[in-house]
Amino acid sequence: MLPQAAWRLDPDPAIWPDETLVTVERLNLDAASFRQLSDANDGDPAAVKAVVLGIVADRGKMQNPVTGSGGMLTGVVRQAGADSPLGLVPGDRIATLVSLSLTPLVITDGLSAWDGRSEQVPCEGHAILFGRSIAAVLPGDLPVPLSLAVMDVCGAPALTHRVVSRAADRPGRGPVVAVLGAAGKSGSLSAAAARRAGASLVIGVVPHEREAAALRAAGLTDRVVVADATDPVGVSGAVRAAGGPADVTVVCVDVPGCEGGAILATAQGGTVIFFSMATSFTAAALGAEGVAADVTMLVGNGYTPGHAKLAIDLVRTEPGVRQIFDARTTGE
Amino acid sequence: MLPQAAWRLDPDPAIWPDETLVTVERLNLDAASFRQLSDANDGDPAAVKAVVLGIVADRGKMQNPVTGSGGMLTGVVRQAGADSPLGLVPGDRIATLVSLSLTPLVITDGLSAWDGRSEQVPCEGHAILFGRSIAAVLPGDLPVPLSLAVMDVCGAPALTHRVVSRAADRPGRGPVVAVLGAAGKSGSLSAAAARRAGASLVIGVVPHEREAAALRAAGLTDRVVVADATDPVGVSGAVRAAGGPADVTVVCVDVPGCEGGAILATAQGGTVIFFSMATSFTAAALGAEGVAADVTMLVGNGYTPGHAKLAIDLVRTEPGVRQIFDARTTGE
Repeated sequence: MLPQAAWRLDPDPAIWPDETLVTVERLNLDAASFRQLSDANDGDPAAVKAVVLGIVADRGKMQNPVTGSGGMLTGVVRQAGADSPLGLVPGDRIATLVSLSLTPLVITDGLSAWDGRSEQVPCEGHAILFGRSIAAVLPGDLPVPLSLAVMDVCGAPALTHRVVSRAADRPGRGPVVAVLGAAGKSGSLSAAAARRAGASLVIGVVPHEREAAALRAAGLTDRVVVADATDPVGVSGAVRAAGGPADVTVVCVDVPGCEGGAILATAQGGTVIFFSMATSFTAAALGAEGVAADVTMLVGNGYTPGHAKLAIDLVRTEPGVRQIFDARTTGE
Repeated sequence: MLPQAAWRLDPDPAIWPDETLVTVERLNLDAASFRQLSDANDGDPAAVKAVVLGIVADRGKMQNPVTGSGGMLTGVVRQAGADSPLGLVPGDRIATLVSLSLTPLVITDGLSAWDGRSEQVPCEGHAILFGRSIAAVLPGDLPVPLSLAVMDVCGAPALTHRVVSRAADRPGRGPVVAVLGAAGKSGSLSAAAARRAGASLVIGVVPHEREAAALRAAGLTDRVVVADATDPVGVSGAVRAAGGPADVTVVCVDVPGCEGGAILATAQGGTVIFFSMATSFTAAALGAEGVAADVTMLVGNGYTPGHAKLAIDLVRTEPGVRQIFDARTTGE
């Protein structure tokens, strides 16, 4: 059984030769998981905290039993096994780039420094990285919460960059790219990655005027449209009016029900990349079939080689990305 | 809202100008749906029948509320709206190629001719096809139950053919293709499509010796291996021992928990196509990330242009495919 599918992992700090022991400093719960935890507990911070502690005590990992998802963590390498392929040494400050849903974890401080109100969770304890885990040493020139937030979603810009680059390699004008949720973290990075990869037009779709203003100020997209991503007719109409349909549609909206709109906003022969963990496999498969949409639909794999490097580079070089991340990580 | 996401559809037989009214002869429930209905009712045929009647009465369509999936139907065109783009005329015997989960349906015979023991459901009633629906006129040279079973899964060989063809276009040896569930309906068609598209090696994975014998007799794959598709280490080991890892892995096993095995059986840079409606989006996304697998993961879109034609052609020209379908549709 793979660690993600196992109900409980063994977080014993005595490591195997290919493992690495990490002193945890901070957890970053994934957005879908935190939203579910918060909603299920009416936003009560103490209740949310108790549920997280209960999950980790019960499962030996922070995997939300409802969403199945986890998040990531930062910490300092305490011990690296002799056969670990990760190239880490004790003292390295790192971020894990595998999901918390498959990372053995013990919390020792009762999360006493967390307010229960955001995904970023100060935390004392230890975690274990397997040989096939991925971890990145945190850049010294960026605040840790920023790097953490960037690396948490770095799979999205990496895969977007790959798909858009391939589409841009075909003769003619570069592809039209629509990003649903473009004012968010994975969305802003994906929009910047799409432009860098050769998109001829990047359309950002956001749910309301406040996010539209933020996205316009960031300057990461050529067009900004306001539409409800869960309304297929609304979102496809908005994308078409803004220069679509899209050759590549990137779904970064962490709410259920965005499959139909993404499919309808995409040109025949185009590609939809689903990064939201709220995506329903059957809604996507049957939705496309039901409207005879010849679109390639990708499960947004969180791992693409070089993903952390690309995302950190985008945040360093694109002031608009930095702006959006700063607004979303300040005070957390 | 798209019809697939709507709880209830309106099955009023008074059609709009772009719609087509069909007299239903037979429903073909999708495998995941029938399995769930049968399991939830301890295989009791009368209970299964009552549940199906209840769903259609309640929702105006046959969409399993647990799996979200439907199936397809055959019937005879009763009335074609003046603006219908489907090109059908009254009297045409057709199969719908959109899911029952978005096809308005009324059952008028209480399913009295169905034994409740198989997915193929003799049925009197009517159904409505929308303008963007897909329907195919049934071939005159094949038994109707066979054509129906073939068209129900025709998206799988079509997308497999496309993906394998593209991989075969690259310089060097053709791709290695693994088909999980190769002795089933979508699996056997996908194996035949992979070979036709230029695979250098087709590995069929089946759960037990009985299916292995059937697959060997059909001759659709170069290698046949027995492994539990829900055991990641087992299935990836078996595929590797048989000539893998696979460049393209096709998942046609309608049980939950096949994501990890499919990912581990696939080479870095390879592609996994998920056709099973039992696929979990998060298990796929997090599973790949968790083992740092750089694999492209496709949601198996049931629609690819020309899908029915390709599948019918495979069943006509590949005796092994016909053999597997005959064994699986006889007596139903």
